[in-house]
Amino acid sequence: MELRLAFIGFGNVARSFARILTTRAGELFEEYGLRCKTTAIATGTHACVTSRDEIDLRDAVSCVERGNPLTNLPGCESAGDSLAVLNQCGADVVFETTPLDIDSGEPAITHIRTSLQRGIHVITANKGPIAFAYSELKSLAERHNVQFRFEGTVMDGTPIFNLVELCLPGARVLAFSGVLNSTTNLILTGMEAGQSFEESLAEARRRGIAEANADYDVDGWDAAVKAVALANVLMNAEARPADVKRSGIHDISFKDIEAAAASGKVIRLVARADRSANGVSLVARPELVTRASLFGSLAGTSNALVIKTDLMGEIAVVENDPGVEQTAYALLSDLIVVHKSMHQR
Amino acid sequence: MELRLAFIGFGNVARSFARILTTRAGELFEEYGLRCKTTAIATGTHACVTSRDEIDLRDAVSCVERGNPLTNLPGCESAGDSLAVLNQCGADVVFETTPLDIDSGEPAITHIRTSLQRGIHVITANKGPIAFAYSELKSLAERHNVQFRFEGTVMDGTPIFNLVELCLPGARVLAFSGVLNSTTNLILTGMEAGQSFEESLAEARRRGIAEANADYDVDGWDAAVKAVALANVLMNAEARPADVKRSGIHDISFKDIEAAAASGKVIRLVARADRSANGVSLVARPELVTRASLFGSLAGTSNALVIKTDLMGEIAVVENDPGVEQTAYALLSDLIVVHKSMHQR
Repeated sequence: MELRLAFIGFGNVARSFARILTTRAGELFEEYGLRCKTTAIATGTHACVTSRDEIDLRDAVSCVERGNPLTNLPGCESAGDSLAVLNQCGADVVFETTPLDIDSGEPAITHIRTSLQRGIHVITANKGPIAFAYSELKSLAERHNVQFRFEGTVMDGTPIFNLVELCLPGARVLAFSGVLNSTTNLILTGMEAGQSFEESLAEARRRGIAEANADYDVDGWDAAVKAVALANVLMNAEARPADVKRSGIHDISFKDIEAAAASGKVIRLVARADRSANGVSLVARPELVTRASLFGSLAGTSNALVIKTDLMGEIAVVENDPGVEQTAYALLSDLIVVHKSMHQR
Repeated sequence: MELRLAFIGFGNVARSFARILTTRAGELFEEYGLRCKTTAIATGTHACVTSRDEIDLRDAVSCVERGNPLTNLPGCESAGDSLAVLNQCGADVVFETTPLDIDSGEPAITHIRTSLQRGIHVITANKGPIAFAYSELKSLAERHNVQFRFEGTVMDGTPIFNLVELCLPGARVLAFSGVLNSTTNLILTGMEAGQSFEESLAEARRRGIAEANADYDVDGWDAAVKAVALANVLMNAEARPADVKRSGIHDISFKDIEAAAASGKVIRLVARADRSANGVSLVARPELVTRASLFGSLAGTSNALVIKTDLMGEIAVVENDPGVEQTAYALLSDLIVVHKSMHQR
């Protein structure tokens, strides 16, 4: 069985994933019987195209990285916009990786809704839809008997959603806390080492991990949206980003970092969810944590999530110094799960 | 569909699991359609019994905890020994939780082999069989089209084997390092807090986490066997416990702990696996680690495993201060995976 793939968004993450797909094609077929064929790609600034035959992913990646429109590729037809692509692509699986919109989750929600309604499996690395429309999209996927997967939205390819769904069956998530934003952790640990805020932020940009608008990271929005995504999926919170008590790290000075160090502590941007009488309460803000603690031990872009459950006590998952390749891996792991589910049907 | 269960071994872990099964029976049926019926229990000192009808698990737990033989229970027939039980029980799933034998993995291997040959799914919390006979038992399970699951053998119910199998598809494990033995970690962190070796060991015994023979913990055998189990399953190492370069913590004194602390370090018993030209090299020994590191942050009975992969970089899983309930949960999570697999067939 050959899976037809469509890409909505073809930025760093999608292209890194495309590279894995091409370099690992042999292993994926041998190990999982998985064979893929890309039939459509929609980008913001390099055109939207479909192909009756197959788009060569290697060519597509180098075309975009040279700054050319995808319409240059042989056999590719221009297809208007992303929605036109979704309506024409005839894909089995759509990868939605457009940039995050913090206010509404659009246009990603519309892309995903349209795909699911057409009976197309959706894999996304965009946390907006999970923060703004999770329960709607989940029901839609169930109704159309397709998969809606989003492992890459929190902690990149580190298993979080799949971990709870597939590996913690029967256990209930009671609370969580996490250092979920790589850019702010790089800045805070950079400042601990004497680098300025701006130098560390520039490094995050160089490594391609800062949001397109880095204020999203620095002001705590990225952490807040991730907390909402986690709470919605793991705790049925039905929360929205505006529900999070949020503050960022913009005002944190060397003086604050030194004062913390004097008492064996460091500052981390921590997101927390707890069940309360009024549902799930959510915060994302800088906290003083002991240096010799899990959160204190997180260096550079590292992330960690502590999950408190009823039957399994407290476990944590840590991602050590990830880059874009780890988000790309999330798309692969979701693709393999989708492929397995299609086989089982 | 009602699953018939047999218990080989009915110690702390199995009884704690039996408690979950009885208290969560309603939820397990609602959420997974899972209904269980125990038909046989084999113990070392409280008799081996089968029942044509059903053994009430609540009654069985209190019978054993009062020190009585299970033959006291109504409707239970004496069944000789554990092998006789396996041959008569007619179970769908066997839970093997007999004590670890460090030299051979027996009699657990025989219990598991017999079960698999009879087409019975096996769930074990006993690491011996994974360290001594993994590839044989795995092939046997495949040949008889049944599941052989063992999440509880390393880090209790914290997903490790299921994590890699179900949540890291397509990625290869290149190396790992872990603090895997709770008893020694409790002793080392207890000594950091000024408690004596013996006091901390007594606490581990009280909490039911020390091996029946605590020398297995203290001499590093438990960590070594776990490293072998991980290497065999995650890296196809085909290793045996004797292959591990192993040393324990018996000789570590307050002086060593103080000397480490003077340079911001602590001592942890660390197991490591790395690929080398000659296969997989394995060590389990005390290491100096930075206090402000993941391993340094592990308090009490906590464990952690760092997994290095090709596509997903480095991730870690941490289990915070577990007790027997967490090993019991491993049996439940494996049972749900087995149940799902039966549905998919």
